[in-house]
Amino acid sequence: MTETLTLNEQMLERGRCARAAAAGLRDAPAGARTRALDSLARRLTAAEADILAANARDVAAARANGMAEAQIDRLLLTPARVAGMAQAVKTIAAVPDPLGVETERWTPANGLDIARVRTPIGVLGVIYESRPNVTADAAALCIRSGNAAILRCGSDCLQSSLAIAGLIAESLAEAGLPADAVQLVDTPDREAVGLMLGGLEGAIDVIIPRGGKSLVARVQAEAKTAVLSHLEGLNHTYLHEAADLEVARAVVLNAKMRRVSVCGATETLLVDRAAAERLLPPVAADLIAAGCELRGDDAARALVPAMVPATEADWTTEYLAPVLAVRVVEDLDAAVAHIARYGSGHTEAIITTDATSAERFAAQVDSAIVLINASTQFADGGEFGFGGEIGISTARLHARGPVGAEQLTTYKYVVRGQGQTRP
Amino acid sequence: MTETLTLNEQMLERGRCARAAAAGLRDAPAGARTRALDSLARRLTAAEADILAANARDVAAARANGMAEAQIDRLLLTPARVAGMAQAVKTIAAVPDPLGVETERWTPANGLDIARVRTPIGVLGVIYESRPNVTADAAALCIRSGNAAILRCGSDCLQSSLAIAGLIAESLAEAGLPADAVQLVDTPDREAVGLMLGGLEGAIDVIIPRGGKSLVARVQAEAKTAVLSHLEGLNHTYLHEAADLEVARAVVLNAKMRRVSVCGATETLLVDRAAAERLLPPVAADLIAAGCELRGDDAARALVPAMVPATEADWTTEYLAPVLAVRVVEDLDAAVAHIARYGSGHTEAIITTDATSAERFAAQVDSAIVLINASTQFADGGEFGFGGEIGISTARLHARGPVGAEQLTTYKYVVRGQGQTRP
Repeated sequence: MTETLTLNEQMLERGRCARAAAAGLRDAPAGARTRALDSLARRLTAAEADILAANARDVAAARANGMAEAQIDRLLLTPARVAGMAQAVKTIAAVPDPLGVETERWTPANGLDIARVRTPIGVLGVIYESRPNVTADAAALCIRSGNAAILRCGSDCLQSSLAIAGLIAESLAEAGLPADAVQLVDTPDREAVGLMLGGLEGAIDVIIPRGGKSLVARVQAEAKTAVLSHLEGLNHTYLHEAADLEVARAVVLNAKMRRVSVCGATETLLVDRAAAERLLPPVAADLIAAGCELRGDDAARALVPAMVPATEADWTTEYLAPVLAVRVVEDLDAAVAHIARYGSGHTEAIITTDATSAERFAAQVDSAIVLINASTQFADGGEFGFGGEIGISTARLHARGPVGAEQLTTYKYVVRGQGQTRP
Repeated sequence: MTETLTLNEQMLERGRCARAAAAGLRDAPAGARTRALDSLARRLTAAEADILAANARDVAAARANGMAEAQIDRLLLTPARVAGMAQAVKTIAAVPDPLGVETERWTPANGLDIARVRTPIGVLGVIYESRPNVTADAAALCIRSGNAAILRCGSDCLQSSLAIAGLIAESLAEAGLPADAVQLVDTPDREAVGLMLGGLEGAIDVIIPRGGKSLVARVQAEAKTAVLSHLEGLNHTYLHEAADLEVARAVVLNAKMRRVSVCGATETLLVDRAAAERLLPPVAADLIAAGCELRGDDAARALVPAMVPATEADWTTEYLAPVLAVRVVEDLDAAVAHIARYGSGHTEAIITTDATSAERFAAQVDSAIVLINASTQFADGGEFGFGGEIGISTARLHARGPVGAEQLTTYKYVVRGQGQTRP
């Protein structure tokens, strides 16, 4: 019991420190936040050897624990990956500071001058798994957006993350910002996650889980705070009867196979019956040649006999693997209905040369991102021009889609009067 | 048990109907939503006698149950109040339709044409108490913003609300919209509230409580869904040393006494020590003359002996009554610190002729609304030009401040390409 109490007390103290640091970070000029980020990018490069040494300890422990090589690859840092981390921080440093920006200003009938101004959310709790680069990425986005953060990494990458967190604290201090503005939970005790999900007595404004479905599901079920997350990206690409064949071939292959493990990967292909004979065999041939397993309904299998039969479960499965479900639909309405029933509200695409159909699809599909003639793998904050992202949200409040620095802000109203009283 | 199951089944069916109706409401043209609102305003006027008759039954039952007259006044409808309800709906009908509006559009380096477009949140659960006008108000804001709604009123106003809900359904149907888009829970069974807070198996996207602190606290503690709410408006007016005396007198009197029971009322007055002798006696005299009890710290009482001594509890009490806490502070930093410690993040005001101090206060006070030289009682969606509000949010995600039709929307990204694939 004493140990649990101690961890609880430690975490509450982290929460109080984060809340206090949040005000300092928020009230500092944008230049200080930019300096901290520039400093972090430099320090990551300069401390490459230390980071790699810490990472080697994580990797050795993981191997000793029998971790699979695919998972070790997520944990592993290399000189190129450290350079990539530093570059990601530089990119976020170059994003315009979102704070203090007036997004609207107007004067209603009462003569008041009302401005809507961006402010930080406050304190973010970021819970992630074994990718050590998230430590730098998440810290950079929090600093750019003026939010304090409590980071909790998987125990697998704790040594790597501690090395990076030390650089973050130095960078904040160098820029005259509170070093407590970004804290890494330095114990592998899993109870710390539960304490964060409880909100640390109101010190955490929002929890952002970054990781696999089991982590996100736990966070969504247990968090007492707000959560920004997506559980899954069950994304569809729909080949409309007026699709251009070459666009369809290139986009579908990219949407499924560029990287099969990302949340923007297409998991189900829908094809209009009227164009299935023209489109499906060549699109399927490309996918099969690239090593993708296809699971089709009867109409799709009649055109591509190499497909295995799809079952109802295939419409609801986020494979994150070289597997694609394929269904022939009657028309655009049927495609929209399939997506409404089985989709996860993340990202969907239509391929068509018919602008009217494209716009109808974009209007009726209720997902965070709807693409016309482009790959679902563009679901990414970097590709959106946000400089980075802390994740993609399928929540319906606050931010949807890629969550960059601007999406980590809220707003307040500043109302300027000349002594007005309300009648 | 059978009864509970039956209510649960009924509520789940409401959820499913609301979800289905939400799509119909969302995809309908703005004109249809406007026609439904115009129709509702007309029907409220035409059905005045029916509404008043239903209300008379509610009032009679409340009297029979021994309800206090102050509470009966909240429940009571009169011809003027019915006309006010119709006018409120007309005002909301005149608000520009927020849906489909592109709030941003840009092209990042990859050449994609990215647009951010407003869409409805989905299904709102509105839980309120004994004011029957909320039935019409909330329905009108939901229709304007394209959200389906499940309304749960207090049992005290159920007959009045049922009469109004019948008109809402007729108005939706007349405009060709799903009549299920706004549903009133027609049982006084309190268990229905718990079921709504559970989210009805994902059918409710956000719960909006409208009512007293005990209702809001219960919703915040128990809701499994997102919540848009404020628990309290512990608002401050700060008289800076450079305050104009006449502005201070007029604004403080209005901020406290215009209506003491609204969430935008000032609850604590802060006064700079350097100007306390000049400002506090006349400001206090106005308040005392208007029937306000003042509770001051020692420095304030030295200047205004009629004040009773304030205790620590006074800094944390939302009186919602003709009572005002008064504290002398050293300077602007001390005022900001007092607000950060004791405020509820709702609405604060500074009175000053010094623009630099005003802007510093506006930047450093982290509340949903910060006013310069104006009454805190302007914290109101109507005063902000929103045409109405479903409440004021002190949440830090999604909407802060007055929540009108636009604040009840979310967004999606529509991305237009020409066959782009991601490298």
